[in-house]
Order: sequence, then C-alpha cells, then structure tokens
Amino acid sequence: MAASKSSTPVLKDELDIVIPTIRNLDFLEMWRPFFQPYHLIIVQDGDPSKTIKVPDGFDYELYNRNDINRILGPKASCISFKDSACRCFGYMVSKKKYIFTIDDDCFVAKNPSGEDINALEQHIKNLLAPSTPFFFNTLYDPYLEGTDFVRGYPFSLREGVPTAVSHGLWLNIPDYDAPTQLVKPRERNTRYVDAVLTIPKGTLFPMCGMNLAFNRELIGPAMYFGLMGDGQPIGRYDDMWAGWCMKVICDHLGLGVKTGLPYIWHSKASNPFVNLKKEYKGIYWQEELIPFFQSVTLPKDCTTVQKCYIELSKQVKAKLGKVDDYFNKLADAMITWIEAWDELNSSGASKGLPNGSAK
Amino acid sequence: MAASKSSTPVLKDELDIVIPTIRNLDFLEMWRPFFQPYHLIIVQDGDPSKTIKVPDGFDYELYNRNDINRILGPKASCISFKDSACRCFGYMVSKKKYIFTIDDDCFVAKNPSGEDINALEQHIKNLLAPSTPFFFNTLYDPYLEGTDFVRGYPFSLREGVPTAVSHGLWLNIPDYDAPTQLVKPRERNTRYVDAVLTIPKGTLFPMCGMNLAFNRELIGPAMYFGLMGDGQPIGRYDDMWAGWCMKVICDHLGLGVKTGLPYIWHSKASNPFVNLKKEYKGIYWQEELIPFFQSVTLPKDCTTVQKCYIELSKQVKAKLGKVDDYFNKLADAMITWIEAWDELNSSGASKGLPNGSAK
Repeated sequence: MAASKSSTPVLKDELDIVIPTIRNLDFLEMWRPFFQPYHLIIVQDGDPSKTIKVPDGFDYELYNRNDINRILGPKASCISFKDSACRCFGYMVSKKKYIFTIDDDCFVAKNPSGEDINALEQHIKNLLAPSTPFFFNTLYDPYLEGTDFVRGYPFSLREGVPTAVSHGLWLNIPDYDAPTQLVKPRERNTRYVDAVLTIPKGTLFPMCGMNLAFNRELIGPAMYFGLMGDGQPIGRYDDMWAGWCMKVICDHLGLGVKTGLPYIWHSKASNPFVNLKKEYKGIYWQEELIPFFQSVTLPKDCTTVQKCYIELSKQVKAKLGKVDDYFNKLADAMITWIEAWDELNSSGASKGLPNGSAK
Repeated sequence: MAASKSSTPVLKDELDIVIPTIRNLDFLEMWRPFFQPYHLIIVQDGDPSKTIKVPDGFDYELYNRNDINRILGPKASCISFKDSACRCFGYMVSKKKYIFTIDDDCFVAKNPSGEDINALEQHIKNLLAPSTPFFFNTLYDPYLEGTDFVRGYPFSLREGVPTAVSHGLWLNIPDYDAPTQLVKPRERNTRYVDAVLTIPKGTLFPMCGMNLAFNRELIGPAMYFGLMGDGQPIGRYDDMWAGWCMKVICDHLGLGVKTGLPYIWHSKASNPFVNLKKEYKGIYWQEELIPFFQSVTLPKDCTTVQKCYIELSKQVKAKLGKVDDYFNKLADAMITWIEAWDELNSSGASKGLPNGSAK
C-alpha cells in the first residue's frame, strides 16, 4: 500500500470506476487507498428520490434514473432499471479510455501472503500488456514478470494483440447460478490461482460484471448489459450477454480478453430463491444462446465495434427472435444503445454533456 | 506421503510409467514413495551396450535399441534414436490403460505449504475427471473439490467429455526454447499456479513431454513423438509434434486435454547452444506447422484414433511436404508407427510379446 501511495497512480486521468448501487457506498472506505485517486461514476439504481451517501474525499459523479431519462430521452429505454445492468450507462457517459467496474458488495481480498490486493492495479497491468488469443501458453500470461513463452510457441505470435477486457475473479462467495447456490449453500472459493490468461480465440466464457475492467476505446460499444430487471422476463444475464457479444466481436477484430487475477473478496451471496426467479428463463435460453454465439460470423466489412454490434443485433433478431419475442426487443435495444453511445461519444459530445450531480 | 502409503495406490495395475534415459536412474530414489507401486517401462536411448542401473525395489522392464530393432524389425525406423522421442516406444509396448511419462532430470516439487507433490496422483485425478473443451469455466477445473461451474455455464455442457491427456508443469527451470534460454539464462519458474484447466476445443498449445500423462486406450496411437535426433534435421520438437497431432484428433473425437497441476521440479537446463542447433529448423518450420494444424479438418468417417492419424499423415504429406522433404519422411513414419502399434496391440498381441529385460 505504501508503494501505491507514494507514486502517481497509473492511468489516474484515463480511467473511471463505474459502480451501480442502491445503497450508501460505505464499501468504498476499504478501497480508499486504491480508488481515491480515480474518478468514480456512480449509477444509482431504483428509487431516484433516495439519497446515496458517498464517503468524503472521493471524486465522483452520480446518475439516478431521472438523470438517465433526461440525458438519453426516449433512448433511455435501452438502460435497464432495478438491475445492476444499469451500470453500462456509466460506460457510455465516461470520457476516459479505461473503465473498471465493481459491485458494492465486493471488498479488498488478501493474497496468500496476507497482503491487500490492489485489484485495480492488476487490471491495469492486464489491460496494458498484450493478449495471446491464437495459441495457448502453458505458463499462462507470458508478459508477467518471471514468465515467458514456452518452447514450441510460434515466434510470429509473441507480439500478441491489444487487450480489450480484463476479467477478475472472486474469493469467498463464488459467482454461482441459483441452482448451484441452492445445492452448495456453503461452498466458498478459497483457491487463489496466481495466473492471468488469455481466453483463446473462438472460446466463449461466462463474463461476470462484479470485478471487470476494459479498454473503452477498443471495445466500449460492445459492453451493453442488455435489458434486465424491471419489466423484463430475466435478470442476472446482463454481464453474460455482454460477455458473449464482446467475445465474438473481439475475436473478429483481433482483440484480446484476459481472465484470472485480480481477486476481490465477494462478501455475501445473493438470495438463491430470488435469483432462481430471475434466472430460470435464462437457464434454458442459454442452451440456445451458446450455440448461436459459437456459430456467429461477422462479415469482413465490420471493421468497427459499432458495425459489428449492429450486425450482431440483426443476427440476434433473425436467429433468436424465434426462441422468444424478448430477443426481438433486445435486438432493438442493442441498436438504440449504439445510437445513444454514438450521440454521447461523437467528437463534439465530450464537452457540454449534461452531467448528473457532479462533485 | 503417509496417506499415499497407507492406502492402495490408485490405478496400480492400470498405469505404466515410461522413462526415456541414457543414464542410471538415481532420480527414482526421490520418487520412490510415489512410483514404487507402479510398473516402469524404461526406454534406454543411445549405446545399447551400456548398462543402466535402476534402484532396487522397482518393478520394471527395460528396452534398449537392440530390443526395439528386434521387436519392431524394419518398422523400428519410426522410433527415434539419440532423442527422448524414443519414449513413445514405451507407449506402444505397454498393455495398460494409462501412461505417465517423466524425464530423468525431474524431481519431486513442493507445493506452497512445503509438502511434496505426488505428481502421479494429480495426473490420475485429472485423467479420471471429465474435461470441458466447449466452454471456458472461469474458476478453472469445475470437478476439483471446492469448485464448480459458474453462473452462465450451460447446464447441457456440465457432464463434460472424457479426458485423454493431462499435461503437467515445471517449477525451477521452465521449458524454454534455445533463444529464450540464451536471452534469459537466469529465469526460474517460481510461480505455483494452483489450477487445472481444459485447453478449449480449437486451441493448440505446446505440449511438453517432461511431465505428461494420458489415457492410452483413448488416444495412445496419436502419441507418436516423430522422427528426431540421430539422422534427422531437428530435435526437441518430438513432444510438440505429438501435442499438435493429438490435439486436433481430440478435438475431432470430442476428447479433453488438461494442463496445469501437477508441478515437478525441473532440475537443470539443457545446453542452449546444443538446443539451438537441434531447434533452429523447427523454429521456422513451426510458423508453417501452426497454421497447418489450425486448419486441419478430419472427415466424419475418421471415427478411431488410428483412422484420424492415417488421415492426418496424408494431409502432412500433401501440405507440409513442400515445406521440406523431411515432412514426407515423417508422414511415412506416422503410417509405420500406426502399423507397428496395431501389430503390438491387436487383441492377440497382449500375450507373448517378446519383452526387453524384464525384472
């Protein structure tokens, strides 16, 4: 900790921390040594008349539902309500190159030596070093100190590709679905796996939004967390949806996705009965979603994230619309999301954006 | 260690340990508590008149070059000489379901708690639990105790597929190629990554033969270590070649390949100058080999490992023969290997096999 305090924090002016919440942000106290130098974007979910307390000394802007409606107008329909999926509004209004997003029930974990883990610092390391999606390195991330590419790794692939996403993990409460929570109520994740690895090209994974960082310039418009929660037939698939969309686009554009370190301490399990209600449609829909995403191909002229995303929304409508009408709505919302993104992120939009309650 | 001594060793009668060597096997002393219950197949490389000493108390059979020539006749040409690639002869003469192979410069490593790692026991765990090649689980091997599939992992994929190969890692001296050895002579692997993971379908990796186990019934005939060493233009690509062939066949047949735990302690680096001489053709050939293996597709009627391997040999000849005539020879040797395998492993061959010097 002393070390991080004494030097200038990395990417201090190039990274926003996005936090979706419905409560006072006391959890920030524990993160103060690591987060205080950075700017926070707080997305208040639920009742906008409620006041969210943020501990003193943090630099933040806060958006509630009224702010979202005011800023996006009719396009606010693409931002979920009463679901942590609303966090993606924060990605959209950020003007920074990098985003780190974390849930408010996540605390600082300790490494096996008993030291506090600076999760943000590790995410930044992951994002600044290349990824290796085309060939698996058995000693994991070859760019970490003390590691390299092993014998048999083609030299032409050792430069790697730019890293778009860094997916961090969780000690204590693992990110299980409701059925697994119900079956294993006492399971805790105590295994500290000291590795970062690139998810290979062509491989899908379950991206969790609890402890996640990404390069907004490279992949931001693909990080849409979908339609969840209030008025929608499912919840708890927001980050999964984003992860599958993001991964096929990264594979198409030649961008890297890493998973592994850093760990955060996930303090408490959400209610498995409530979760089951939110998830159950997703649990059978995903059996159709995975084959869909595994077979998606994007045409060569999709050279930007936006173009890829619009094309993907068309394929969602064409192929998943028949699974449930929800996917037609979702496909429309994907387009609205891109329109809203482009509106807020056009070259002129960086000035004069009507902010929420900035402090 | 006490625990492993008190109970019957797992798969005692179903697993052979294959060791290629040119020297006395003093290294076995350190492995005694773990290996002594198992049968060893020692493949003596180099001068067959030399006597290899095996510590007392081990149950083994030993084959030198004269034995190989006698047993295989003209087909012995497919077994490399003066290269650890000769180990695959041991896979062929084994009559067991599982093989563990280890180099004689590999010692027992310690886990972070300071306990000796029973590498063989971990390999057996890896082989007996299913693999998950179709979707990545962010908490790594879901079948290990204390772990499971995370939220978003399709339920239809949770049964997994049979595991064909378990690839273990190395503490101390990492398995680097000659250029990396030359550039980083002092680098040591000290990072203990407490994970086992499935290499996803469609992803290639550099398989190292130093600390490797496999299910011989499922994948044995694909574990050919090629033509290396004496009279050949390259060395140190034996295990790589086997790994690439094996992986495309496992992907085709729906079998799993794991990497990660267990670690062994790799005691000393081989000479980087000698290695460079062995490797340099491989270093540029592999730039053609990887795209070749990445694009290999096997027809549907290849339903056995043998059929897959014969088909692969044809594609090697057709596509890599123009890279160098060596690959024409190698393609022929691949066919000889399968013929020899089938000869020794036909239903009747399990009796009356002319052994080497069994003890």
